[in-house]
Amino acid sequence: MPLVRIDVLEGRSRGELDAICEGVHQALVESIGIPVLDRFQVIAEHGPGGLVFDPDYLSIPRTRGVVFVQVTISAGRTLEQKRALYAAIARNLSSGAAVLPEDVLINLIEVSRENWSFGNGLAQYAPSESQGGPR
Amino acid sequence: MPLVRIDVLEGRSRGELDAICEGVHQALVESIGIPVLDRFQVIAEHGPGGLVFDPDYLSIPRTRGVVFVQVTISAGRTLEQKRALYAAIARNLSSGAAVLPEDVLINLIEVSRENWSFGNGLAQYAPSESQGGPR
Amino acid sequence: MPLVRIDVLEGRSRGELDAICEGVHQALVESIGIPVLDRFQVIAEHGPGGLVFDPDYLSIPRTRGVVFVQVTISAGRTLEQKRALYAAIARNLSSGAAVLPEDVLINLIEVSRENWSFGNGLAQYAPSESQGGPR
Repeated sequence: MPLVRIDVLEGRSRGELDAICEGVHQALVESIGIPVLDRFQVIAEHGPGGLVFDPDYLSIPRTRGVVFVQVTISAGRTLEQKRALYAAIARNLSSGAAVLPEDVLINLIEVSRENWSFGNGLAQYAPSESQGGPR
Repeated sequence: MPLVRIDVLEGRSRGELDAICEGVHQALVESIGIPVLDRFQVIAEHGPGGLVFDPDYLSIPRTRGVVFVQVTISAGRTLEQKRALYAAIARNLSSGAAVLPEDVLINLIEVSRENWSFGNGLAQYAPSESQGGPR
Repeated sequence: MPLVRIDVLEGRSRGELDAICEGVHQALVESIGIPVLDRFQVIAEHGPGGLVFDPDYLSIPRTRGVVFVQVTISAGRTLEQKRALYAAIARNLSSGAAVLPEDVLINLIEVSRENWSFGNGLAQYAPSESQGGPR
């Protein structure tokens, strides 16, 4: 169910961009149990000026390799799960996608489970879908 | 009040993109009573790799014609209204924009009514705007 | 902590785009006390048809100079603070970035403070980070 938006500055190879997407997804799978197949991501590259970041906020040095990761997800994860997710994303991007841990900015937007449709115009995750049988 | 973000892969004509925007908007009007003039949408095309989707999650077959629709909207719709909205979007895109129902992914982000300004720096939907008279 | 997404139609100079980003950020600083260094923004330009807006909704005349500003921010601002923010954004864009006040559309998405990581895979704003000492 996550819908992931990733924003970076231009200059990375296709392989690097793919590795970023893969690292974020694997982190969701490893840390909070998202199904492997539940993968929906948008990654956008921006020219100079299109992505603005402070290079020192909270004394974290950031470079032009900064990666913004905004994940819309159903509510209900504990703080510990969120911590594990942040750590996993930073670790995966660092090890697999040549992104510095300092360059990984993450934000979660939480929504109700009934706020998703994965196709065919149905609310597959809504409460009564699972109680009411097929429709 | 909805702010709609639509993401697709490159390769569609301008007319197809316009039909997708129109179909989503008409669905909001038909199913949950959004005013016809209350239309604010961003549609972005992505190159290969820019939009990542699983072609089989929940056993729904998806193609490169997949359309991500993320709608930010004021909270308060019932589950039945959300179901009607999902069905209307899938139906409209299928009939008017040559999008397969299986290819329509929808997510709603709900916010407070006071979280909108439609121009002039005012909170037109905030509670006391309507009680306090003109300002 | 705000993550700001700004969407405009193509045709503005780099300087105008920078002034829009600057004006939005200064408004956050002035009106609701966001730290000056807490600046993370994405600004995207769209071709004809990529940004759809009604030119008259709520009797506010909008032009092709319309600017969509979507701010993800931690919850907790009062209505008065939100009003001040909307007014400051419209004022700053009008005075510093040649944007008409009528053309400024703003939406806020509110999230929990624990929903942010500003780098290094840590939840810098989560409650127990500040209680538990350095980690």
